[in-house]
Amino acid sequence: MKESGRKHGALSPCAACKLLRRRCAEDCVFAPYFPPDEPHKFASVHKVFGASNVNKMLQELPEHQRRDAVSSMVYEANARVRDPVYGCVGAISSLQQQIHSLQTQLAAAQAEVVHMRMRQFSSSSNTGGAMDMAVDQANMGESLWSC
Amino acid sequence: MKESGRKHGALSPCAACKLLRRRCAEDCVFAPYFPPDEPHKFASVHKVFGASNVNKMLQELPEHQRRDAVSSMVYEANARVRDPVYGCVGAISSLQQQIHSLQTQLAAAQAEVVHMRMRQFSSSSNTGGAMDMAVDQANMGESLWSC
Repeated sequence: MKESGRKHGALSPCAACKLLRRRCAEDCVFAPYFPPDEPHKFASVHKVFGASNVNKMLQELPEHQRRDAVSSMVYEANARVRDPVYGCVGAISSLQQQIHSLQTQLAAAQAEVVHMRMRQFSSSSNTGGAMDMAVDQANMGESLWSC
Repeated sequence: MKESGRKHGALSPCAACKLLRRRCAEDCVFAPYFPPDEPHKFASVHKVFGASNVNKMLQELPEHQRRDAVSSMVYEANARVRDPVYGCVGAISSLQQQIHSLQTQLAAAQAEVVHMRMRQFSSSSNTGGAMDMAVDQANMGESLWSC
């Protein structure tokens, strides 16, 4: 794991140390997650969080969580670079709107099912076979509302 | 606007300058958004983004966008403090799962409407009044699928 930042040879510094123009030590905290062939990943997190904060945040985490933490920081930093005002929060707000719209559509579809069920029941009451239909509808209701 | 960080008196530094132990200048870029009575707001963004990065990001934005940028940075920083591995991205992932689940529920409800419509149509064809029912169902279909 610790060697993934050095796949281009023992002397190649990781993308972080290259950008910071410092020697890439054997136990560099950045090297496993910022290989030299992906310089943009570190450039973004450095611009948004700062190298020293990223270093500190990684040091505070156990090693098995660092890769996920780096991925989420890169994602967050790229979002902030693309949208300096809202960053990731813009994406959250848009997803919340999408949820609201889906909830509205779902409520409408469910209301339509109930409406149709009532019509179907009253129509079958008038034309016969009401009992079978009612049982059938009750079962469909369960499957719908248990979603 | 520029004075909002100084509502406790001309000599009271904003929360940022207080934490950084520096003089709060008249044109302090932090003061309008980090009043002294809300010290946690700045503490979070400082811990996650670093004061110098926050300063730079604010300076790069026109004044009318800075309040929103600060709000989104505070939100993001609090999320990262709460969840150091996933931060805001954890919330995004959970909202995406919620959307996926709502889309599945909506598809099921819509399929149930179509299924009921077909049953209702075939049952009304057998018992009379088929033409009226078909027109009615077609209209309901439009209202559902146009969601």
